[in-house]
Amino acid sequence: MKTLKNHKFVLAMQAMMLMAMVQGSVAQEDDKAYLQTANAIIDEALQRGKAYEMLRELSFEVGPRLSGSPQAAAAVEWGRETMIEHGLENVHLQEVMVPHWERGPIERAAVVNSSFVGTHELTVCALGGSIATPTLGVTAEVLEVQTMDELHQKASEAAGKIIFFNRPMDATKRNTFAAYGGAVNQRGSGAAEAAKVGAVAALVRSMTTALDDVPHTGGMHYEEGVPKIPSAAISTLDANFLSDLLKKGAPVSVNLQLSSRTLPDTPSANVVGEITGSELPDEVVLLGGHLDSWDKGHGAHDDGSGCVQSIEALRLLKALNLRPRRTIRAVLFMNEENGLRGGKGYAEHVEKNGPKHIVAIESDRGGFAPRGITVQAENQIVAKVARWSYLLEQIGADRIERGGGGADISPLVPQGTVTMGLMVESHRYFDYHHSANDTFDKVNERELTLGAATMAIIAYVLANEGL
Amino acid sequence: MKTLKNHKFVLAMQAMMLMAMVQGSVAQEDDKAYLQTANAIIDEALQRGKAYEMLRELSFEVGPRLSGSPQAAAAVEWGRETMIEHGLENVHLQEVMVPHWERGPIERAAVVNSSFVGTHELTVCALGGSIATPTLGVTAEVLEVQTMDELHQKASEAAGKIIFFNRPMDATKRNTFAAYGGAVNQRGSGAAEAAKVGAVAALVRSMTTALDDVPHTGGMHYEEGVPKIPSAAISTLDANFLSDLLKKGAPVSVNLQLSSRTLPDTPSANVVGEITGSELPDEVVLLGGHLDSWDKGHGAHDDGSGCVQSIEALRLLKALNLRPRRTIRAVLFMNEENGLRGGKGYAEHVEKNGPKHIVAIESDRGGFAPRGITVQAENQIVAKVARWSYLLEQIGADRIERGGGGADISPLVPQGTVTMGLMVESHRYFDYHHSANDTFDKVNERELTLGAATMAIIAYVLANEGL
Repeated sequence: MKTLKNHKFVLAMQAMMLMAMVQGSVAQEDDKAYLQTANAIIDEALQRGKAYEMLRELSFEVGPRLSGSPQAAAAVEWGRETMIEHGLENVHLQEVMVPHWERGPIERAAVVNSSFVGTHELTVCALGGSIATPTLGVTAEVLEVQTMDELHQKASEAAGKIIFFNRPMDATKRNTFAAYGGAVNQRGSGAAEAAKVGAVAALVRSMTTALDDVPHTGGMHYEEGVPKIPSAAISTLDANFLSDLLKKGAPVSVNLQLSSRTLPDTPSANVVGEITGSELPDEVVLLGGHLDSWDKGHGAHDDGSGCVQSIEALRLLKALNLRPRRTIRAVLFMNEENGLRGGKGYAEHVEKNGPKHIVAIESDRGGFAPRGITVQAENQIVAKVARWSYLLEQIGADRIERGGGGADISPLVPQGTVTMGLMVESHRYFDYHHSANDTFDKVNERELTLGAATMAIIAYVLANEGL
Repeated sequence: MKTLKNHKFVLAMQAMMLMAMVQGSVAQEDDKAYLQTANAIIDEALQRGKAYEMLRELSFEVGPRLSGSPQAAAAVEWGRETMIEHGLENVHLQEVMVPHWERGPIERAAVVNSSFVGTHELTVCALGGSIATPTLGVTAEVLEVQTMDELHQKASEAAGKIIFFNRPMDATKRNTFAAYGGAVNQRGSGAAEAAKVGAVAALVRSMTTALDDVPHTGGMHYEEGVPKIPSAAISTLDANFLSDLLKKGAPVSVNLQLSSRTLPDTPSANVVGEITGSELPDEVVLLGGHLDSWDKGHGAHDDGSGCVQSIEALRLLKALNLRPRRTIRAVLFMNEENGLRGGKGYAEHVEKNGPKHIVAIESDRGGFAPRGITVQAENQIVAKVARWSYLLEQIGADRIERGGGGADISPLVPQGTVTMGLMVESHRYFDYHHSANDTFDKVNERELTLGAATMAIIAYVLANEGL
């Protein structure tokens, strides 16, 4: 039913677009001119695009870049130099203090007491923010739950145990981000909830739609006044193994060892560059992604892709000598993954010092084939953006829908900025997300570069025409 | 301009759809019922889909399966057993004779005389259908051309040489199949054209949008009355290397060794299974892919995916107890790659014996995320199919466009069958196509399974409602 309602909404939107299209000849002329511009942007991207080469550099020459790490500092310098190399204007850093959590050298878990197996190693990794275990680890019996409700129903059994949160992402969700949204509370607040009922550690099924043998990390948080207990992700294959073992009925104990620690906050920075607007330079359309990543893989899809697409979008406009009426700015945000300090600091700075941001568009759903734009605004604003969808039809990126903007740009919303997100094909994203599998080779050059072209086209037309 | 015209066509189509949607309440009821059915099909596919497991079997337990090979025979038996296992009805083989070409054990090439390098091995593979070289190979100077016109302009220089066809696929094409279409004549008829001007062999730049170090094979054909000369594909990286070497101006000679041969035609078969229609069992909606593949990689995208999707589409309907008014038939065609004997034999058999095929839908563009359906028919028929696009909107597979059906089903067109093709995201296809990289791990389970669901939904509604 929800889908049918959406369908009717889409039909209504299409009707509005049709009416817009059959109006005056001036608009028709603009449409043709913009279509030629869009064609030129796409041609330039497909023929001489630089996003893929930028991502190769970021992946192999910088590598994973968790906030506070030396690699994150190297990424900031890489971003600054890359923006200058590609001719962006007013390139500068905007300093922020960021959390500094380290995984440390040891993360392991093993089944130690089952009557069915000997010592069986489990593939695990510390969740971001977790405290360490004692040197020899925590050893306790495992209690499996699917939901927080089930945990609290089993509160009397939970004391002294390791809580194993094993609710899979719902495969029937059409968009994998919805499946992620329905499971990720286990990772974020599992440890805190488990501690409330006296547990000694939390093991969380990896947030992925794939059955694989690597753990997928991600942020978790403790609660004020609740004991901190160590928390780790377990691979989906080993989560199934552990669950099967528990089904046999005998108690299963696990030893978990983590060596992670939180260090003092560290200075870091957002990286900013732009094309100054020709007529309204103090009004900004922002394009952005986040420069930090987790410390596994290359952070190629999450979110190296969004960073290089933001730079590439401006390079495409420069290459074609397109200077919009308003300023278009690329921002590589620091610390999306475990603090959002970059996004918050940026919005604070803009609130104090300007310039006014009319629109902000984030790419943080992976460098996959673009499908369109989600707009976090009421229907009338969505329809105004949908007015331009014909420019993106030729590459299949013309879905303009209500939906999320992006984490880094969300602090701009209270200032009246309309936030939008690059929407991409979502099926593969959580196969790689936050794991050692998020590497450069998982990115296709055409898909990445067409995402950059999509951002360039929509930013250019909105920077010219406003909203 | 062409795009703007297409855009207006799409708008007109959308207007037609809007009008259709606001008509009588009976149609509205049907729409809701079909939408519920579509939802159930997609849920079943995402939750309990079998396409991925079928493809794993075909990839690893059968492997590459060039027509006439023992593996192709094993694939036929696999197809028959798999259809029976999943409850398809009237499962049977339909025999055809197929060509039998073998690559043989030796395929190598090396630069042998350049003053710039010593012996430099080039990564090559025989093109399908090529004759062998003499045992010690053909050694000759290389002449690079981009087009057939250029070849004939340089006819006076060509005698005794190896012609190196080096026109890349045009990266600016929005759909990679268009880029392929603009380059593939070099592979298909390069050797014959080269022979006409006295060349002794042909080397053809691999048909891929990727820069990689593997050769991509594919079909080539000789012409009656023109000498047969050996022909091989060269990897895009080595094509660039060879071209750069030639640009330095000194003659470059290459030694090419191929051991391929053509054996007598061999008996093989198409594999057929169905769900018999409840009211009009003698009218058929066909779903198909081709069972043969080239002899590199797994043939996972080309076209193991189309085969398992065709079987899975019927399994999905069976699992939900959906029996359409007309018969839906899955056909795994043999010999698409180098002869189309399966497709031709099938159409001949249907012409003689029936039943009447009203629609045939092929999946042969890889197991990527579905985008919609191409319909090889005039606009009125396209609009009738587009009538049902709302069923596919929730998975982003709702583009209904004029376009190709598929090679295997094309011989049905003269009988009045409307042919259609599953349209998928095309960017990655030619990275893998006809090469050792077309392996199971390149296929994403959700993308594959949603392609099967798309086929099931459109086949079910057309089998019920007709065209």
